Amino acid sequence: MITEIALLNIRSGMKDEFILSFRQAGGIIKKMNGYLEHSLDQCLEDDHKFLLRVKWEKLEDHTIGFRQSVEYEEWKALLHHFYNPFPVVEHFASIM
Amino acid sequence: MITEIALLNIRSGMKDEFILSFRQAGGIIKKMNGYLEHSLDQCLEDDHKFLLRVKWEKLEDHTIGFRQSVEYEEWKALLHHFYNPFPVVEHFASIM
Repeated sequence: MITEIALLNIRSGMKDEFILSFRQAGGIIKKMNGYLEHSLDQCLEDDHKFLLRVKWEKLEDHTIGFRQSVEYEEWKALLHHFYNPFPVVEHFASIM
Repeated sequence: MITEIALLNIRSGMKDEFILSFRQAGGIIKKMNGYLEHSLDQCLEDDHKFLLRVKWEKLEDHTIGFRQSVEYEEWKALLHHFYNPFPVVEHFASIM
């Protein structure tokens, strides 16, 4: 199991619209092969910053299975215009 | 409930020593008032990068209760020399 992590910086004034769109996008990712769970958290020090975590069975479920899917095009259309700058997405494995 | 989040960049060649020290440091934080749980994850793209998450009952359990404690001095002595740069620590609340 691996966790996809992205710190999302949202364009000024767009946080509420982002949250609504993200709720819809969650329905897309949940159906993907290898998807286990996801969460979205909002930063207390900066209400336009969010932490996205998605747990996948294996790395390729995200990097290939999801990113090369038709569903990823829908995900992008819902979410990518909110980001500034475009986020760095990394993957993590549990140590403890 | 809030989650403390820090991306930890470890000095070159010191990741294994950091993991050992962190295991010891985990024993310190677990005893603090308001502590709920913590996790440490290692980045697949950069094995000297880690994500620390600590769940606290409320923000002040971390920012005041822990950071102004004698135990925090022990935590610092165990961990702070591994970081480069020194990490930004932020707090997040669950949205979904």
